[in-house]
Amino acid sequence: MHSISEYSSMIEQAISQLRFPGGALEGLYAPVSYGLQEGGKRLRPVLTLMTAEAFGAQPCEALHAALGIEMFHNFTLLHDDVMDNSPTRRGRPSVMAKYGVNSAILSGDTMLTLATQEVMRVPDQALRPVLDCFNRTAIEVYEGQQLDIDFESRDDVTLPEYLEMIRLKTSVLLGGAAEIGALIAGAPEQQAALIYKYAERLGLAFQIMDDLLDVYAGAEFGKPVGGDILNNKKTWLLLTALNSPLAPEVRKALTITDPQQKIQAVTALYDRLDMRRLCTRAIEQYTAEALDALNETTLSQDAKQSFRTLCEKLAVRSK
Amino acid sequence: MHSISEYSSMIEQAISQLRFPGGALEGLYAPVSYGLQEGGKRLRPVLTLMTAEAFGAQPCEALHAALGIEMFHNFTLLHDDVMDNSPTRRGRPSVMAKYGVNSAILSGDTMLTLATQEVMRVPDQALRPVLDCFNRTAIEVYEGQQLDIDFESRDDVTLPEYLEMIRLKTSVLLGGAAEIGALIAGAPEQQAALIYKYAERLGLAFQIMDDLLDVYAGAEFGKPVGGDILNNKKTWLLLTALNSPLAPEVRKALTITDPQQKIQAVTALYDRLDMRRLCTRAIEQYTAEALDALNETTLSQDAKQSFRTLCEKLAVRSK
Repeated sequence: MHSISEYSSMIEQAISQLRFPGGALEGLYAPVSYGLQEGGKRLRPVLTLMTAEAFGAQPCEALHAALGIEMFHNFTLLHDDVMDNSPTRRGRPSVMAKYGVNSAILSGDTMLTLATQEVMRVPDQALRPVLDCFNRTAIEVYEGQQLDIDFESRDDVTLPEYLEMIRLKTSVLLGGAAEIGALIAGAPEQQAALIYKYAERLGLAFQIMDDLLDVYAGAEFGKPVGGDILNNKKTWLLLTALNSPLAPEVRKALTITDPQQKIQAVTALYDRLDMRRLCTRAIEQYTAEALDALNETTLSQDAKQSFRTLCEKLAVRSK
Repeated sequence: MHSISEYSSMIEQAISQLRFPGGALEGLYAPVSYGLQEGGKRLRPVLTLMTAEAFGAQPCEALHAALGIEMFHNFTLLHDDVMDNSPTRRGRPSVMAKYGVNSAILSGDTMLTLATQEVMRVPDQALRPVLDCFNRTAIEVYEGQQLDIDFESRDDVTLPEYLEMIRLKTSVLLGGAAEIGALIAGAPEQQAALIYKYAERLGLAFQIMDDLLDVYAGAEFGKPVGGDILNNKKTWLLLTALNSPLAPEVRKALTITDPQQKIQAVTALYDRLDMRRLCTRAIEQYTAEALDALNETTLSQDAKQSFRTLCEKLAVRSK
């Protein structure tokens, strides 16, 4: 097995080698290039390469599909930023802010079709199962985004509803990325389902950790601490607090107009609820479910260790 | 061969039988249903069914792919209406106006993936060629839309540039719709290319006729007569006039602020240039090219007659 940073390098190299039409079509493709250079962890395509190799394929056999999944992810960021009216993304202007709303829409559409073209670069026998997984996952991601939008204007969102929303919006794409790697390697259906579950549960842990870090991490994570509190964002922490005996006090604290006072008041209530520990326990539970699914696979100990290392790397964020 | 109205009925029936998730996901799928009911001529899927049958397949074998192409077309309308800020579409509120910008974006994305899923419902041996054609066509449609947006802010668009823009934005999807029918029927590559050319040239004729009708048709066509003139829209007529000895007078007429006077002045200049005849001649030329490509195919006389009838049906609009 290659290391995570080696997989990551393969993806960065493949992205850097992409060439798009220029000239009269510069306006369409410059935002595509810019969006792809957003340089996150490349977690999704890394999962595809790692899973493909774990099930016996060469990583290069899954490279284009992995790239397609990363393109799909970036397409969703372009459109999400339009829907959320977000001026920034990872500390630089969003595509919408840099190129305008229409470019973010149309270049996003282009990225979705380019993504499908890349995902199609698999052996013929894998084409239909890989695309079925890709399309099904895409639909679920849209459904998750729709629920996220709907939840903003609702006051009665429950924690299970929230968990289903983040599963669709975030986790299924990690699951799909892993499953596609397994399908390319010709893994049996049951094995593909187990590695899907590993990645999906990891995604849930990952997303809830985001909620935790927004309140309890330092500013070094690139987000203003307490941003979710300021925006009354429905997070794992807030929905748990609103389902606790302190709910009336939480509701009151959310009405405070001074930003710093609001963050302090809500955080103090979270502290009284021992929220940091509660949330950490939820993260650990989902991580354990991910590792249980991993252990059920017939993968080699070497391969399993790679997936465990990925878990640990992601968990480091919270320290 | 079935008649055009029979193909059209097959499509309408297939659309009416589609069932989408409701409940919490109503917000995502209601705009999809609404968009699909826009009830145009269904020209693109009719072309797919007609071509499939002409090359020896049963229309039902191409029905899902045809539906997918119609879904793709409707997805582009959803996003185009956002980019153009269009409140209406075919005399009723656009999806954007009825459900909001975010719904038009996200439900549009959903339609694109649903379209791909439908297009994939072809026999395995046709899967890759059909999807390759579908994706390539989609990319060209985005490129056409980008050029259309760019042309709005340019003063020096030439007629050849305009023709390439409408070819990409409109005609290639007719070409792709026809080619996909041929591919499903297992037609040889050269035959598929000829029927592609037939449909693409027909599309050019069709689009230029739109430009003509905006000026010279009565209001019964559902568009205000002279709307393109009022909006300084770069059309076949305007670009031809701007390339004529009357160009200075045309430029001056475009600056008139009174709507009726502006339409009258520009139309009078078009009349002096014998624009109606010039434009009709261009339409006839593209139609002739379409029929030449058709005649080069090895299709039966019966099949060829169906494609000729389609030409005539479209031409009737101008009378």
